[in-house]
Amino acid sequence: MADYKDLDRKVIRLGKQIVRMCTEAGSGHPSSGLSILHMTAALMYRVMRYDPKNPWSSSADRLVLSEGHAVPAVYAAYCDLGGVVGTPQRPSQLSFDDALTLRAADSVLDGHPNPAIGFPFFDAATGSLGQGLSVAAGVACSARLDETDRKVYCIVGDGESREGQIWEALDFIVDHKLTNVVTIFNANGQGQSDYVSTQQSSDALIAKLTAFGMDVKVIDGHNWDEIFAALSAEAADKPIAIVANTVKGWGVKEFQASNYHGKPLAGDQLASAMADLDAKAVELGVADAEDTPAIQVTIPAEPTKAAPEGEISAGSFADALIANGMADALEEKKLSPRRAYGAALAAMGSDERIVAMDGDVKNSTFATFFAEQHPERYFEARIAEQNMISAAVGLAQTGKIPFVSSFAKFLVRAYDQLEMAVITNANIKLCGSHAGVSLAADGPSQMGLVDLAFMRSFARTTRVDGQPACRFFQPSDAVGAFKLTELMANIDGMCYMRTHRPDVPLLYEETEQFTVGGFKHLADGEDIAIVAGGYMVHVAREAMEIIEEKAGLSASLVDAYSMPLATEEILRIGDDCRGQILVVEDNYSGGIADELAAAAAKSDLGVMVHSMYVSDIPKSARTPEETLRMAHLSPEDIANTVQKIFDKSEG
Amino acid sequence: MADYKDLDRKVIRLGKQIVRMCTEAGSGHPSSGLSILHMTAALMYRVMRYDPKNPWSSSADRLVLSEGHAVPAVYAAYCDLGGVVGTPQRPSQLSFDDALTLRAADSVLDGHPNPAIGFPFFDAATGSLGQGLSVAAGVACSARLDETDRKVYCIVGDGESREGQIWEALDFIVDHKLTNVVTIFNANGQGQSDYVSTQQSSDALIAKLTAFGMDVKVIDGHNWDEIFAALSAEAADKPIAIVANTVKGWGVKEFQASNYHGKPLAGDQLASAMADLDAKAVELGVADAEDTPAIQVTIPAEPTKAAPEGEISAGSFADALIANGMADALEEKKLSPRRAYGAALAAMGSDERIVAMDGDVKNSTFATFFAEQHPERYFEARIAEQNMISAAVGLAQTGKIPFVSSFAKFLVRAYDQLEMAVITNANIKLCGSHAGVSLAADGPSQMGLVDLAFMRSFARTTRVDGQPACRFFQPSDAVGAFKLTELMANIDGMCYMRTHRPDVPLLYEETEQFTVGGFKHLADGEDIAIVAGGYMVHVAREAMEIIEEKAGLSASLVDAYSMPLATEEILRIGDDCRGQILVVEDNYSGGIADELAAAAAKSDLGVMVHSMYVSDIPKSARTPEETLRMAHLSPEDIANTVQKIFDKSEG
Repeated sequence: MADYKDLDRKVIRLGKQIVRMCTEAGSGHPSSGLSILHMTAALMYRVMRYDPKNPWSSSADRLVLSEGHAVPAVYAAYCDLGGVVGTPQRPSQLSFDDALTLRAADSVLDGHPNPAIGFPFFDAATGSLGQGLSVAAGVACSARLDETDRKVYCIVGDGESREGQIWEALDFIVDHKLTNVVTIFNANGQGQSDYVSTQQSSDALIAKLTAFGMDVKVIDGHNWDEIFAALSAEAADKPIAIVANTVKGWGVKEFQASNYHGKPLAGDQLASAMADLDAKAVELGVADAEDTPAIQVTIPAEPTKAAPEGEISAGSFADALIANGMADALEEKKLSPRRAYGAALAAMGSDERIVAMDGDVKNSTFATFFAEQHPERYFEARIAEQNMISAAVGLAQTGKIPFVSSFAKFLVRAYDQLEMAVITNANIKLCGSHAGVSLAADGPSQMGLVDLAFMRSFARTTRVDGQPACRFFQPSDAVGAFKLTELMANIDGMCYMRTHRPDVPLLYEETEQFTVGGFKHLADGEDIAIVAGGYMVHVAREAMEIIEEKAGLSASLVDAYSMPLATEEILRIGDDCRGQILVVEDNYSGGIADELAAAAAKSDLGVMVHSMYVSDIPKSARTPEETLRMAHLSPEDIANTVQKIFDKSEG
Repeated sequence: MADYKDLDRKVIRLGKQIVRMCTEAGSGHPSSGLSILHMTAALMYRVMRYDPKNPWSSSADRLVLSEGHAVPAVYAAYCDLGGVVGTPQRPSQLSFDDALTLRAADSVLDGHPNPAIGFPFFDAATGSLGQGLSVAAGVACSARLDETDRKVYCIVGDGESREGQIWEALDFIVDHKLTNVVTIFNANGQGQSDYVSTQQSSDALIAKLTAFGMDVKVIDGHNWDEIFAALSAEAADKPIAIVANTVKGWGVKEFQASNYHGKPLAGDQLASAMADLDAKAVELGVADAEDTPAIQVTIPAEPTKAAPEGEISAGSFADALIANGMADALEEKKLSPRRAYGAALAAMGSDERIVAMDGDVKNSTFATFFAEQHPERYFEARIAEQNMISAAVGLAQTGKIPFVSSFAKFLVRAYDQLEMAVITNANIKLCGSHAGVSLAADGPSQMGLVDLAFMRSFARTTRVDGQPACRFFQPSDAVGAFKLTELMANIDGMCYMRTHRPDVPLLYEETEQFTVGGFKHLADGEDIAIVAGGYMVHVAREAMEIIEEKAGLSASLVDAYSMPLATEEILRIGDDCRGQILVVEDNYSGGIADELAAAAAKSDLGVMVHSMYVSDIPKSARTPEETLRMAHLSPEDIANTVQKIFDKSEG
């Protein structure tokens, strides 16, 4: 039997620090940290092949702490190990006492794992529960593509395993045979407000994990022999899941008296906790032992294969269409943007950074072109959008550029995961298809309508480097979709593209350029400026014919395909059109009209911004024309609204 | 062995209709419909205790079609049965041929189940996959409270069972011993874009369901004996799950040639499908049989116990605080709104319609008061927000008024479920706590920041009866939170209340009234109008002191606690303050400022709307004051902005 005295000594030291740092912060989850203390120490001082001085290594093993609130354990160890934080350009080394800066405004030791603020030991922000295992799966997909043997360890809470996404992640891990993921379920038996349900008991977890196809190992999570035996096991055909029975608040009596969660100790309680841990040291026979570095890890060699760099090209629009069996569209000059997305994605697949995912609708989003041409870099996510997004974060954080598609409506399913991706500053590219009411027949359960309001929030939020947290694009034709897909690949950061279902005429030549913040001034009129995006650009064009024919009015037309949007320039176009702008959108409110109104309301130009949008919950109809009429967004409705605005402004 | 000739005849008739109705609609999922045809017929013609003429019965058995795209099977049967649709006030009866109106603009046979437009046979809109079983669980909770023995049958697709929410629902069903739910997994082996993963094979489902604690029965889903044996089994201690092996596109060769999904047949294909089904009739020996009504169901008696009616009261604010151990707050005149939410909810618990749910944070949201005082009507949902929301929809659709709480951030997890609740027009009440940056130390993974943008979309969307799809409230103090909680109980429709973490001074007397669309004009100044909600009202008050002291400027202050908002009135307040409004919010953009800007930009008043909001991704700090400063939203920041606006408008 091995001697673990140095580690026993270490967990006493770290245990005390965990308690102290939460007391210092005035908040935090010391009891959760103590429950994973032994496993964390085993991983960070022995098992993981990594260098705490180089958290940016692309061959080292990784730890994803899905139950993010237990992070004081990791922080305490990483500080003890003198781990490096910051950026590769501006690295800095932590000291043991830096752990006491937990949650301070100027500390990188955020309340929950948060790599974007300078804690690169972690791949993704966690803390919204149930997402880490999917991130780990994404990192593992990346490792396989990179042909490294890095392992990804992921610690999941037992209460957390109630989140359905955990089971989506397990299905994904088994489907893709990701035996390089080692999942550790921390079964301490307690949640925040109560003991965990029997459905999340250790026994229940063992049964469930076995049924999901995992190789399950059950251990005492505070027993070194059992921990090391489980962590050093090599996965055969099944991925390994470890169910670790642990004690929440290990070593501290106060924490174990009842269900104890998320509160620090103060005063006498703190002193008593220190005494408890001292007593534990005596019990373990290490009361008088010296603390040693204790780290015995292998530092893996950096990969020799250089990652590709430079601009990514989708090549020629025409070539890509022909290559994917859509030569007819060039003749007919008509195609749905979603098909162009698929063609651009497949064409860019020659670059090894590009990977793609889709949730069982690839034949609708046209990710299918990529899946067929680059099967090794296509990860079918099945009907589980939450796992898909978080796995994409894992891929992005390890150098891949994941393009992720589904119906815009189904991506709503992963809005929390998208917000965590924003916090992580993950370089993921989203395509939400079948947006707006032009999907028609399938009805509101399949229509992406709230995506503009949600994504615009992030387009107006700034990340650490001053760039928008998300760029939003809405192409009105296939050329735009093609070019914007290519643009997204070359942007550093999260992008969301919204495509609609129907075929529409090509509005642009292949030479047309599209940019972040750009728009297209499609027509120059005098009486009003109509601003639209996506499918509504076509509806607006029809409306303009009616307006001109019936009322003799001429309208400017702006294709507002980007968010952030060049609002000042568009307001000036409105200013030239009798100061009247009408925005027409096939989404719920919160999109382009609000973006322009927010700018207009603090501008001195005095431009009026009127808007038409989906203001009733839609229902099915058999054609887009019908759903548009039902939403009062038909060309005739737009023409009537223009007439009323004109009458009023002239009246 | 029983004779099922009448049912065999019936499925041929219904099968043909399923194919025809999709052809007529030009879209739809005939192959999925055919896979559930026998089970649907068994349920609707024999097993369910219900009356197709009274879909509003509160004692009848229910069917939740979680895989909503298979709905043509149910529509075909319901039309054949002369089922009633519409509203209790304006019922109308369907005929067999009405099935052919599938997906038409004026038909209640929407693309996916959609009760709100007049198809009350269903309890909830489905079609965004994975949600129906949670709805069924909610209906089952309601049935238990109502002491009826109604059963809830739920059909789930095999591919659909990849959605994590299905497993959340199963945990919930087992936790709450909901043996009145019978779950049927339709294992046809095919998804949209491919065959299902082996992780969703019939065998995998059997193993998983068993591990989750279900009593699993495996059947041939086209064999009457096996179907009836499984459906008529009485659950003992475990809830029943039926894994039904079925054929996608049963009876039609074209559908079975390869993976076939979501496309109708036309021309020769249609004729050939009809011929296939005729051949099937010959095979079954019913080619010459007459179609008969075939229905043999029991119609349950309506419940004798009348549901409570009338206004719901939370009683006196002071009494409720005292009853829940917060008498001190009355002395100190300081309390967090979330505590007041808990007190109001517990007080209203005397009304049997009120039920509550929370996702393991009830000791933070203070749903715990209700849980302790009304345990029989409290449904702990554990860490599984998606199931929680959809189960609440089931409760609401069966007459309960569910109050559902979690951190505002964690409710983002269920935004798709909330959108489906909006489509359903479900009367659910949400409380998102710990919103904004005042949570401080836990960091961005726990901060509700995007909720205003998302909820405002629904506040501006109109449901069938002309009312907003969601009412949004943001109380600035405990009195407001108390009164608004009571108001939510008395509103018909979805409401969302946003509460923050810190204790704040009471701003209002207990006699204060709060209304939908209301606001409070807290201070009347001359130089600018500051508009805020929630915690920011307090920050704005501090800013006003600075402004007055340092610059001698006087500001109006508006507590904009409601959305929809009385924008015209607030713009007039701005008009009286030199035409300048400054909105200060502790959320990402898309909230109050945009609501006012949208109104200002189409108003002739010429009022300017400036805004301050969370425009960077926050990180942890130890106090709300620090996170506000980091977000440039401190009282000093606001005062500086006011000064700049004043200088500019005067300059």
